[in-house]
Amino acid sequence: MKILEDRIRRDGVVKAGNVLKVDSFLNHQMDVELFNEMGREFKRLFADRPISKILTIEASGIGIACIVAQHFHVPVVFAKKTQSINIDGEVYSTKIESFTHKRVYDVIVSKKYIAPGDHILIIDDFLANGCAVQGLIQMIHDAGATVEGVGIAIEKGQQAGGSTLRSQGIRVESLAIIDSMDDVTGEIVFRQQ
Amino acid sequence: MKILEDRIRRDGVVKAGNVLKVDSFLNHQMDVELFNEMGREFKRLFADRPISKILTIEASGIGIACIVAQHFHVPVVFAKKTQSINIDGEVYSTKIESFTHKRVYDVIVSKKYIAPGDHILIIDDFLANGCAVQGLIQMIHDAGATVEGVGIAIEKGQQAGGSTLRSQGIRVESLAIIDSMDDVTGEIVFRQQ
Repeated sequence: MKILEDRIRRDGVVKAGNVLKVDSFLNHQMDVELFNEMGREFKRLFADRPISKILTIEASGIGIACIVAQHFHVPVVFAKKTQSINIDGEVYSTKIESFTHKRVYDVIVSKKYIAPGDHILIIDDFLANGCAVQGLIQMIHDAGATVEGVGIAIEKGQQAGGSTLRSQGIRVESLAIIDSMDDVTGEIVFRQQ
Repeated sequence: MKILEDRIRRDGVVKAGNVLKVDSFLNHQMDVELFNEMGREFKRLFADRPISKILTIEASGIGIACIVAQHFHVPVVFAKKTQSINIDGEVYSTKIESFTHKRVYDVIVSKKYIAPGDHILIIDDFLANGCAVQGLIQMIHDAGATVEGVGIAIEKGQQAGGSTLRSQGIRVESLAIIDSMDDVTGEIVFRQQ
């Protein structure tokens, strides 16, 4: 998606350790007009899928997921990273290792909000090693619901998350895929899609 | 706001310990069409204010803030609950005690995303003791920016957060204010606004 790639080139900052900082528009400060364009594109890409719900994970997936959901006219559910006293009853749970935070989270979704008849689109800001998405898929399968696809803003193509998901038969649409980036020159090479 | 009060009556669940569960539409599963109506109402209420940015706090404020921001055509910044390795440089920080989670969080906002010229609308899902909002206000003041107001989905009127903020001269607009609720009968009494 050209406007996202252009924005990453303009405002993204490449750091050592394969880190791309896009916190000026994607995951700390959020450009909701850009999210709206991303929502329009995800709707175009997944137009043939009977999506009944969007699932994401806190925190940085939530804003994108909510704006995207307006294009599908479906509710959003976000997986929570810690057990809250406000979530009672039974939950689906999984463990997710965060690339960014270098730790393992317990992640939960109330069983009330994923039903066997649901057709779910997973939305997240980044796809790197794919741990978060794999955890969400596991919870969807535990619920007996259907994974219709995965919509990602920025996929790090050098890491295995995307290729592993695609080899599992999961439809993954990433609006920008980074094939390489250089923290010395700041150069970012996007995959032709 | 009648449609929010009606929704709380229909789908909210009153629990012992002054807990109102609205996780079917507000803060776990999210009804973005409802959020859109809330955004329209916040825009009407704060139409006279020169708002340049919306500030919220992860996680459950983010979805509402993003949908609301579409009505103001401004970016959203969300305060983060833990130090991330992806936030470098200097940050504004505060400590916030969560009523829901019974713990104290360190909360940060990158100094890049609140500037002295900003006119900020704070958006959050709940207002109870007001700790989260007071922490956000402190960071806005630390930045030399202006607090234009606070927009809340559900205020618990029995707790002091709202009245304290109003006595400080802060404009607080809550779309539903609960004056009392009964976990035995499930009855919820809203304040007339």
